[in-house]
Amino acid sequence: MWLINNGPALLTDLYELTMAQVYFGKQMRGPACFEVTVRRLPDNWGFFLMAGLSELESYLARFHFTKADLRYLRSTGIFSADFLEHLSTVRADVKVRSAPEGTVFFPHEPVLEVTGPLICAQLLESYILNILGFSIIEVTLAARIAIASRGLPVIDFGLRRCQGPVASVRSARAAQIAGLKATSNVFAASHLDFAPAGTMAHSFIQVHDCEEDAFRNFAETYGENSILLVDTYDSAVGIKRAAKVARQIFHDKGVRIRGIRIDSGDFVALSKFARDCFREENVPFLKIFVSGDLDEFKIHDLLEQGAQIDGFGVGTRFAVSRHAPAIEIVYKLVQYADKGLSKSSPDKQTRPGRKMITRFKDKYYTHDVVSPLVSGADDLLQPFESAEPIQTIQQRLLSELSLLEDSVKAIKSPTKYPVEFA
Amino acid sequence: MWLINNGPALLTDLYELTMAQVYFGKQMRGPACFEVTVRRLPDNWGFFLMAGLSELESYLARFHFTKADLRYLRSTGIFSADFLEHLSTVRADVKVRSAPEGTVFFPHEPVLEVTGPLICAQLLESYILNILGFSIIEVTLAARIAIASRGLPVIDFGLRRCQGPVASVRSARAAQIAGLKATSNVFAASHLDFAPAGTMAHSFIQVHDCEEDAFRNFAETYGENSILLVDTYDSAVGIKRAAKVARQIFHDKGVRIRGIRIDSGDFVALSKFARDCFREENVPFLKIFVSGDLDEFKIHDLLEQGAQIDGFGVGTRFAVSRHAPAIEIVYKLVQYADKGLSKSSPDKQTRPGRKMITRFKDKYYTHDVVSPLVSGADDLLQPFESAEPIQTIQQRLLSELSLLEDSVKAIKSPTKYPVEFA
Repeated sequence: MWLINNGPALLTDLYELTMAQVYFGKQMRGPACFEVTVRRLPDNWGFFLMAGLSELESYLARFHFTKADLRYLRSTGIFSADFLEHLSTVRADVKVRSAPEGTVFFPHEPVLEVTGPLICAQLLESYILNILGFSIIEVTLAARIAIASRGLPVIDFGLRRCQGPVASVRSARAAQIAGLKATSNVFAASHLDFAPAGTMAHSFIQVHDCEEDAFRNFAETYGENSILLVDTYDSAVGIKRAAKVARQIFHDKGVRIRGIRIDSGDFVALSKFARDCFREENVPFLKIFVSGDLDEFKIHDLLEQGAQIDGFGVGTRFAVSRHAPAIEIVYKLVQYADKGLSKSSPDKQTRPGRKMITRFKDKYYTHDVVSPLVSGADDLLQPFESAEPIQTIQQRLLSELSLLEDSVKAIKSPTKYPVEFA
Repeated sequence: MWLINNGPALLTDLYELTMAQVYFGKQMRGPACFEVTVRRLPDNWGFFLMAGLSELESYLARFHFTKADLRYLRSTGIFSADFLEHLSTVRADVKVRSAPEGTVFFPHEPVLEVTGPLICAQLLESYILNILGFSIIEVTLAARIAIASRGLPVIDFGLRRCQGPVASVRSARAAQIAGLKATSNVFAASHLDFAPAGTMAHSFIQVHDCEEDAFRNFAETYGENSILLVDTYDSAVGIKRAAKVARQIFHDKGVRIRGIRIDSGDFVALSKFARDCFREENVPFLKIFVSGDLDEFKIHDLLEQGAQIDGFGVGTRFAVSRHAPAIEIVYKLVQYADKGLSKSSPDKQTRPGRKMITRFKDKYYTHDVVSPLVSGADDLLQPFESAEPIQTIQQRLLSELSLLEDSVKAIKSPTKYPVEFA
């Protein structure tokens, strides 16, 4: 269930409707085939991962113009009564073929194909791109973050800085698919059946008379699930206080609180200081979590530099994909009334006709070939009916990444995976 | 009315709820005061504009935990029955002071203040930041685009690439406030009572037997509202064909079609070519619109280079704020139980106590002073009850920008506006 309950059909660009009215008036109702491709990889990205099909399913299933939608369209003065009458009957009567969620793919590969009556298939363009674009970005980014963090747990902290509530659910679902540990976003957690998680805010420390009281109050309530935020006043002092409170609680109650979070400063130095401190204070069980403007590049660098970190919180840079907030995802007509079609705008050429993707494998994937569709042939694209269980997608993603050579998965300067167009 | 109808209260980070449970258990229910600030300006930005209060009003008015929300929270095993019972009674019982929408502001200025019971004011943090952050980004960016385009009309084309449907409405509303001309997003247009607009897609050209038929079919349907897309095959040829169709329709029916859209290639050269062509072909009334990866920097450069452009479509780079997809917006506790509070994390220090902003003016605004709140004094922050009419906000924005020196509004390397902290 995806947030927008009514009138999703109006989530379209006006030109889809004005073009549709011409098609309606001129009786242009042949079958059309559109394909979704992404034109290029963001800098330092070596692959994309497919995502967004759960939301796509919900969008297609509920696609229709409500009476209120039709009233609004009439009020614009742009549309004829005949056309609006026709629109009231339009449903997403299309067939979709797609690479399943969690599948690796590359620029210019037709990763999703929509076939159906011209008017309907055209009307779906804007919002299909909206759904798939950010979902693909986020799951690819989450996978890169998982790779960079080398198996350490990562939590999505992005709600406050992402570009809206649906974006927040898209990124939490991406985190879930890519094997991140949890999300701080309670709405997304409830919606997706994903683990909610969190620590404490600076304000929690501030409302107490002193940092130690704050630590103690929290730890008394949450016991072994407590993570104490140490950088409100002086991080080194905060780290020592956290160790002291942890030691006392362990001594008094036998409870091992979980750890600390460092949210500012020099993470390499502070985490090493904390590790040493926790050893000296006899609380070596305390885990060290860090957060604050992290992304796959910074996580990679921190671990390269020997930071003593047991887990990460990723916020803004994950939530808006700071490095690549949009990709050049397009929905292009490749066939109409059984005729292959293409365009030739500079740098935006398309190839005509329906296609398939064949992926070749040795120990790892070796290369892909995109070629004209032959029925019955081995093809990455599969008929899409309904979204798969999240576990299936998670497992596919892991399997896909295990078949991709390390050099293609590199966080910086990946090698280019070969894709041929036949 | 803002899209999320049920359960907006769950749009919060888990730690807001876990902290609230401690406050509840420890009877910490004093009045708290939080302020919203933005830590720094993105590169090349000289100011921010306030926005998001319409959505904030809706969020606060509907803030409550539904039975389903409470069931979910119970299922996590984190919360006691007592606390959940208390949560079921919590409403957004807070007082808000804010700079009105469309007001210019600067880093570290407390642009919005929330005062109320600690539990409630804390729970609102995550989603208030979510609402305000992207709204501020988009209205500021829209204003910068309006400045760069020197009065030429600009249309929001961002729906397909923005990070979700709520983001699309936030950016369309920002476009509306900043005086852009229209949006292609039909949902946002209907929702905001903003003008919908659009041209045609490449697919429209492709489904016709030839470009000329496509132009003619569109122009016959939409007459003087027709904008013909000329870059599907060869832009120079497309421009000449558009001129030919426009001349014939003017000759046959006396109708002046609106113009053309160029979506790729060298906009300076192609627009000059089009202008010359339209003069020679006796259709000088044809307007030239361009789109394709535009932002305020590119628009500025195109006009500096003498491009012959009558209007712009801004898509991806506006919709996700490519240059600055997030800002460091924070919600910090400054007072609890009548005691001023601050934190001192490196680079993240806050100042204690409630504050006001005094803005000084000569011919232009000269400087601001942020100082401890004195009741009855002249203050930018006003009690916020309900959102103003869009016309009021549009006019304020224009007036605010007219009082800001050109050097502060510069698209590149603006000067720093002086803000003193007393």
